[in-house]
Amino acid sequence: MTKSQLTTPQLTESQLPVVQMRPYRWGDPAKTVALPAAAQAALGHLGAHAPERAPVEPDDATLPVSCLTSRVRDALEAVVGTSNVTSDQLARVAHTRGWSTPDLLKLRSGDASDAPDAVIFPGSQDDVLRVLEVCTEHHVAVVPFSGGTSVVGGLAPVRDAFDGVVTLDLRRMDALTSIDAESRTATLQAGMRSTRAEQLLGEHGFTLGHFPQSYEGASIGGYAATRAAGQASAGYGRFDEMVVGLVLATPRGMITLGTAQKSAAGPDLRELFMGSEGTLGVITEVTVRVHRAPEVRVYDGWRFDSFEHGAAALRTLLQDGPVPTVLRLSDETETAFNLADPSGISGSGPGGCLAISGYEGTPDEVASRRAAASAVIAASGGQALGTAPGEAWRVGRFLAPYLRDSLLDNGGFVETLETATFWSKLAHVRAEVTTALTANLTESGTPPVVLCHISHVYETGASLYFTILCAQGEDPIASWHTAKRAASAAIRAAGATITHHHGVGTDHRDTYAQEIGPLAIEVLRAVKNTLDPVGILNPGVLIG
Amino acid sequence: MTKSQLTTPQLTESQLPVVQMRPYRWGDPAKTVALPAAAQAALGHLGAHAPERAPVEPDDATLPVSCLTSRVRDALEAVVGTSNVTSDQLARVAHTRGWSTPDLLKLRSGDASDAPDAVIFPGSQDDVLRVLEVCTEHHVAVVPFSGGTSVVGGLAPVRDAFDGVVTLDLRRMDALTSIDAESRTATLQAGMRSTRAEQLLGEHGFTLGHFPQSYEGASIGGYAATRAAGQASAGYGRFDEMVVGLVLATPRGMITLGTAQKSAAGPDLRELFMGSEGTLGVITEVTVRVHRAPEVRVYDGWRFDSFEHGAAALRTLLQDGPVPTVLRLSDETETAFNLADPSGISGSGPGGCLAISGYEGTPDEVASRRAAASAVIAASGGQALGTAPGEAWRVGRFLAPYLRDSLLDNGGFVETLETATFWSKLAHVRAEVTTALTANLTESGTPPVVLCHISHVYETGASLYFTILCAQGEDPIASWHTAKRAASAAIRAAGATITHHHGVGTDHRDTYAQEIGPLAIEVLRAVKNTLDPVGILNPGVLIG
Repeated sequence: MTKSQLTTPQLTESQLPVVQMRPYRWGDPAKTVALPAAAQAALGHLGAHAPERAPVEPDDATLPVSCLTSRVRDALEAVVGTSNVTSDQLARVAHTRGWSTPDLLKLRSGDASDAPDAVIFPGSQDDVLRVLEVCTEHHVAVVPFSGGTSVVGGLAPVRDAFDGVVTLDLRRMDALTSIDAESRTATLQAGMRSTRAEQLLGEHGFTLGHFPQSYEGASIGGYAATRAAGQASAGYGRFDEMVVGLVLATPRGMITLGTAQKSAAGPDLRELFMGSEGTLGVITEVTVRVHRAPEVRVYDGWRFDSFEHGAAALRTLLQDGPVPTVLRLSDETETAFNLADPSGISGSGPGGCLAISGYEGTPDEVASRRAAASAVIAASGGQALGTAPGEAWRVGRFLAPYLRDSLLDNGGFVETLETATFWSKLAHVRAEVTTALTANLTESGTPPVVLCHISHVYETGASLYFTILCAQGEDPIASWHTAKRAASAAIRAAGATITHHHGVGTDHRDTYAQEIGPLAIEVLRAVKNTLDPVGILNPGVLIG
Repeated sequence: MTKSQLTTPQLTESQLPVVQMRPYRWGDPAKTVALPAAAQAALGHLGAHAPERAPVEPDDATLPVSCLTSRVRDALEAVVGTSNVTSDQLARVAHTRGWSTPDLLKLRSGDASDAPDAVIFPGSQDDVLRVLEVCTEHHVAVVPFSGGTSVVGGLAPVRDAFDGVVTLDLRRMDALTSIDAESRTATLQAGMRSTRAEQLLGEHGFTLGHFPQSYEGASIGGYAATRAAGQASAGYGRFDEMVVGLVLATPRGMITLGTAQKSAAGPDLRELFMGSEGTLGVITEVTVRVHRAPEVRVYDGWRFDSFEHGAAALRTLLQDGPVPTVLRLSDETETAFNLADPSGISGSGPGGCLAISGYEGTPDEVASRRAAASAVIAASGGQALGTAPGEAWRVGRFLAPYLRDSLLDNGGFVETLETATFWSKLAHVRAEVTTALTANLTESGTPPVVLCHISHVYETGASLYFTILCAQGEDPIASWHTAKRAASAAIRAAGATITHHHGVGTDHRDTYAQEIGPLAIEVLRAVKNTLDPVGILNPGVLIG
């Protein structure tokens, strides 16, 4: 590895400003991605037409009158202070649903009917506990909210049975509580944004190594509550693998877990509350493993003749080593579209399937691991493309959500879904889901392009991440709902999981119930009844 | 690495015969370990005298008359067949309690008062389900039993409230159900012995890599139910990390989990049932990750000046790599006693602290990992002792339970306990537990020698395994009970976990309740009430 091939750490990852998310548009306004000409052409080919009306501004969105009684409001203000309870229109709209494409389309059309009645900003664990007490007493549903980036309806509870819904936005709880440098752990409050966590840990020479595509908007508590997985999961692990301790506030009191990284003291209850998506309690603090901040980062591009050959190479690396820090593989269609590098969307390029292998660490360790992994990849049929594709991916990897906004502006519909399965089932699952989506959306009059990649890899299997692009058509939300149901049925029929890292929310609830079965759902209901007897926590999410 | 330093795989690990465990004596009679002279001298120094009476033979043990009614017996026989229900004295004695030293001392004295009323041998998942139905209907407690090697009272339920207790011995359910070579997974029935699993997997070129000290007697289902950890956990992982799928039979029906190695589909319920110790259901089958059987194995010995220096070296390897397959460190006292090599017990030797670093894999991979790890160990102050100490450990590692029998024969009392904590607390926990045990047993008139080692290591912390040797004294069970309580209090006060890999059973139940808190215990009770409404499953174990 020559010096010029090394990528020095980018300040952008550790020192990004806290981004103010705007309703129905992602991230930092300065980063808006203009639609590349090739993408514009693709949209035309798919029959997309720019919508006739501009999106409704948040100020003009339609939302129900807040039904919070003054008695409840007084009680909540008594806990967190007057300035930390708001029913302001913009605040309510900004906390309406999440970041799925249907969520964005609804807001663009001015539909904020799922807006909470108020947004509460607690400042401490004790505040959270007391808010839960007030809401339990007054029969008000509570939506725990850290980054608000759910793409599975995780922030849109079923409110029917309640006397109101409040969103509990944890952004004030964003302290780095402690660092244990010897044990390489850090305790972070749940409302801390990813960007801030990297900045603060970086000051101590550490990184969390968790970089999901929602990185600019998401927060620590949400990662734990939804089992997020970042783009460097091969090297640093999924978020749930990083968590060694957590604190949960429930209507019945606190639970504090994590006396050791691993223990045989009964069931691992951390694993019961991670993935509970705010339905069993509010995660207020997590203790996570941290890593020494890498001195160098280098990302290589590879070309494979087919997805199957590329997948076999990834499998070999995971099963027999060495394991890169980042490992991904796009299928033929995604490689041709190259969404990872929006500036280069085109049908040209080298063809085949693009893979990225990335390495982070000390110069020596990276050099030796890269050499050994490259030998395995080459022996598996990978053709080296140098670091340019890897660099393009690294620079562009957080831009997809911005690109989505531009596609929506131009009448395109773009959405994603994902699953995971065992290696022996991977090709089958990819084929079945692609077929289901293509047939279904074509039937609806909006034939799609379906792209797929592997971005998370394990000894026994991998994730499959699908990106679907088509014209919006007449009723994009209804069409997508039908197509998603067909894709979910294909995933279930193939025995794969309904979600590898997006979570269950309301969108996947029915398929999830089939996946774990009715008795397991009863178990979760029993846990919920114990911790949240009135059922105020995110009703309708996860277990209905 | 020269050829001579390589250890070729030993047939003993993959082709051991199924060992017939004998009541109160461990394992294969041919392997009995005669007490080394140095150990004999140590016992004399500690004031031990050989007991005046020989152990009571199992035929002569005192046990209650089986209270199983003919109605219940008929119903059970209708499920599993007449020959698979027995109330034979030897069978009942052989299923009385587990393998802790107090358990053995009670049996040696002829006390089999905790014997089950009958032993049932189901042949299938359906048998298990139907036995649970019969026992629920007739209010009979059920002890799930795979290897029977619990050292924490996990097989001695509280029977007061029930009309009998039956042990459900899964040994007939010992099939290798399937192997998925591409995904590197195998599905094993719960009653399969470790030795047989290694033999069958070995025929396909795979290993599980799970070698706990109970290896010769323990079984797959018990590993999952108790979160076992083997001696090569640094390389192959703990057993709970190997499990990707499991099937649980409960009085309310079956639960089948594991659609992918990792998923974001809600809580990871595999982690709720692993560690449940037979109280929430009977694990009937697990799907586990398997590894390519290593071509070479090599174990090096190292000497450190102090336990703290050795622990720092282990920590560096885990945090910055590379990670050996086996990594352990004995403290000064354990190094002097060298229990790992019973033939060499003495106060002589090089002094300091002995560490073992082991590597398993392909020749190239082992050579490069060994070279890199050795450089780290040497840089951390480790003095290379060559492969002799590593070989001695490898050969002797399954002998400690045999040695215990010989020590008990000679009036010694030997028992172990273990914990895990974060690196920054490790020295404190070791000191506090050692002090508590020493002070307490000295007070009881049987001053002990307390040995300690680290045998399981993580990025953020490690296990501590204590071996306590003293004279039996007048009432060894009562003395140990008091000492164990003091050690448990010290572990709890230091914030460590009450068990890293032995489990909770009945012995750790109270401390476990303090560790996770009353609300978490309520959660577990709610889960149990859902799956086992009458409470027949291992009553009194884990959650009381």
